[in-house]
Amino acid sequence: MKKILVLGGDGFCGWPTSLHLSALGHDVHIVDNLSRRAIDEELGADSLTPIASMEDRLAAWEETGGTPIAFTNLDCAADYYGLRDLIATYEPDTIIQFAEQRAAPYSMRNEECKIYTVNNNISATHNVLAAIADLRADIHVVHLGTMGVYGYDGDGLQIPEGYLDVQVSADDGSKFDRSILYPTNPGSVYHMTKSMDQLMFQFYAKNDGMRITDLHQGIVWGTQTEETRRHENLINRFDYDGDYGTVLNRFLMQAAVNHPLTVHGTGGQTRAFIHIQDTVQCLALAVANPPERGDRVKILNQMTETHRVRDLAYLVADATGADVAMVDNPRNEAAENDLWVSNKGFIDLGLKPMTLQDGLLTETIEISQKYADRCLMNMIPCVSTWTDGQKPGVVQDVIAAE
Amino acid sequence: MKKILVLGGDGFCGWPTSLHLSALGHDVHIVDNLSRRAIDEELGADSLTPIASMEDRLAAWEETGGTPIAFTNLDCAADYYGLRDLIATYEPDTIIQFAEQRAAPYSMRNEECKIYTVNNNISATHNVLAAIADLRADIHVVHLGTMGVYGYDGDGLQIPEGYLDVQVSADDGSKFDRSILYPTNPGSVYHMTKSMDQLMFQFYAKNDGMRITDLHQGIVWGTQTEETRRHENLINRFDYDGDYGTVLNRFLMQAAVNHPLTVHGTGGQTRAFIHIQDTVQCLALAVANPPERGDRVKILNQMTETHRVRDLAYLVADATGADVAMVDNPRNEAAENDLWVSNKGFIDLGLKPMTLQDGLLTETIEISQKYADRCLMNMIPCVSTWTDGQKPGVVQDVIAAE
Repeated sequence: MKKILVLGGDGFCGWPTSLHLSALGHDVHIVDNLSRRAIDEELGADSLTPIASMEDRLAAWEETGGTPIAFTNLDCAADYYGLRDLIATYEPDTIIQFAEQRAAPYSMRNEECKIYTVNNNISATHNVLAAIADLRADIHVVHLGTMGVYGYDGDGLQIPEGYLDVQVSADDGSKFDRSILYPTNPGSVYHMTKSMDQLMFQFYAKNDGMRITDLHQGIVWGTQTEETRRHENLINRFDYDGDYGTVLNRFLMQAAVNHPLTVHGTGGQTRAFIHIQDTVQCLALAVANPPERGDRVKILNQMTETHRVRDLAYLVADATGADVAMVDNPRNEAAENDLWVSNKGFIDLGLKPMTLQDGLLTETIEISQKYADRCLMNMIPCVSTWTDGQKPGVVQDVIAAE
Repeated sequence: MKKILVLGGDGFCGWPTSLHLSALGHDVHIVDNLSRRAIDEELGADSLTPIASMEDRLAAWEETGGTPIAFTNLDCAADYYGLRDLIATYEPDTIIQFAEQRAAPYSMRNEECKIYTVNNNISATHNVLAAIADLRADIHVVHLGTMGVYGYDGDGLQIPEGYLDVQVSADDGSKFDRSILYPTNPGSVYHMTKSMDQLMFQFYAKNDGMRITDLHQGIVWGTQTEETRRHENLINRFDYDGDYGTVLNRFLMQAAVNHPLTVHGTGGQTRAFIHIQDTVQCLALAVANPPERGDRVKILNQMTETHRVRDLAYLVADATGADVAMVDNPRNEAAENDLWVSNKGFIDLGLKPMTLQDGLLTETIEISQKYADRCLMNMIPCVSTWTDGQKPGVVQDVIAAE
């Protein structure tokens, strides 16, 4: 049993992770300033699923037999001393750092969102590191990164887990072999902050011997986990709006409300995916397998399969009869790319990946249908554009499902 | 003639650069929140040279025939909209970004200094980029980086200017050639922020086509430039305290006050150096030679020579008769390293480097002697330690000069 502080434990990944770790017998303490709920209000959006207040969530967890989980409402970016005092008092074995703004489109929405994302994400993560260093504490930091740090301009090389072995040829013909942090190529301000986080982890691991695990996660789909299914008030959030909704969940929910599936550009983008149930299992494996003091940062790719976006659209269209709409791509990204990723780290730790074929698509469709009357249709299009060169992803022409 | 906004124009590099650019005929507007003067008060330290208020500095510049320089007291990190409005109104061709906390020891002093350095440096630089992107302005950003981003664990490879050509061998024997940002290896929180800045520049150059030059500067020595010599009130600052004083200037000033020259560890650290007069010339060359829109970030190494620290100590000891004291190294760094750096970029642009042999040592010694009575002896030792494993750099044993 470990004592685990979960920063950002009210969010889409943080909440089911907190429950899963609690169910496994760990002592869990959630820290969150409920910023994700505040952003919903700012955007005029809401989770498709009706999520309960943190108080009701925690009460429901106890009601279903769960070990009590503590909660502190605290802004990890703005309240350094509050965070530091909590760490000093609670004395966690592990801190899981989810407390970052996590949507690429929101991070590109306007100048305020760019600035908020940078200041919030960098300060929150650095505050954790500075506090641990100052307390001389031996705490394992587990951070949620993103596959997006690697970029999507691949040349056919398999994306390794964090590090790349390279050879440099000097002008005089001599060769130098180096193992380097994979050169980052972020595609949004959000992804940029995760790339910057990597440099902070590298420094604190080297200078202070801090034990750090960075999880480069793919796009998460699904909503429920074994634990969130236990009670209506434990239900996880389901984002479908243009800023926070992730692509496969958006398709499933668009099908449920008879909206054409909105494919950005050609849909030729290949991305890595993982189901939320696998996310929580990966977090548990990461917590159970910390690096040693003095090790370099342990980087694991937290994904289970790759798909081209248009293939997902046609898969969902086939399953539901929905139409597919090719819309302008609001993002500045390659129209088509291949992606080949190693996830050997988690497989070796025992992860048994779920895939799209496992009936979980059906569950997500059923949830979408159950709460379809809560959908705000105007929130569906992606309107946050990367530059003047991009247009919002609004439906113009609809292509019938094949 | 260009319109140039100099952020951090009150500092050690910012002030002489502003005067030099003004002398060359550019229209210069200084922005500074005078934070460096505030930190002096916080530390109980002061510039060895008596620096005038910004008002008196600017009046002296006009008095000596200089074109008037405007000044706005503004915190670039905290006041985004003030900065943005100033950029919108002034419409600069070039923004020079010096407005970052620039001392490695200060950045490692304690948790507050770590947090201030990260929040201040990242926010200030990102605010500049976000404002330019939002204004859709075509402004050349020139940023002062540091040689420290490359790190000092060299394996004998010459340090290139920002980018490294590498080859990756896949398991199946196929080869992949890539030109990557040089893998960063910062040795302090300060250097870490400059490494993080690089990723922000990379992103905004790619996403917004922004024209950015990043200058990886060596350790600056000297105080005066052609322009700061024109009037007593134009004199540049001279830091000698343990946090802000740079190594060669510290040796020259220690000699002037009959303090042993404090060499950290074995003094086997090899570092890159540049005289402040060359710094201002490099800035002028960088301003005159922007990259094109769509180019990757232009990175230049702003240094003219490399020296081992103990060699500098013995050079100054020979010139002055001072003693040399080997003290504990408060930093977490390699005891001995070699360093071989390319500075082809500035040489090709026409820089004629000064060296230690050019009589400038004498000028710096004379300034140190002139203001020796202003020296606070208790401020000389480096007391900011990197980790529990380091001790302050306090004199124990003195070795007579050879």
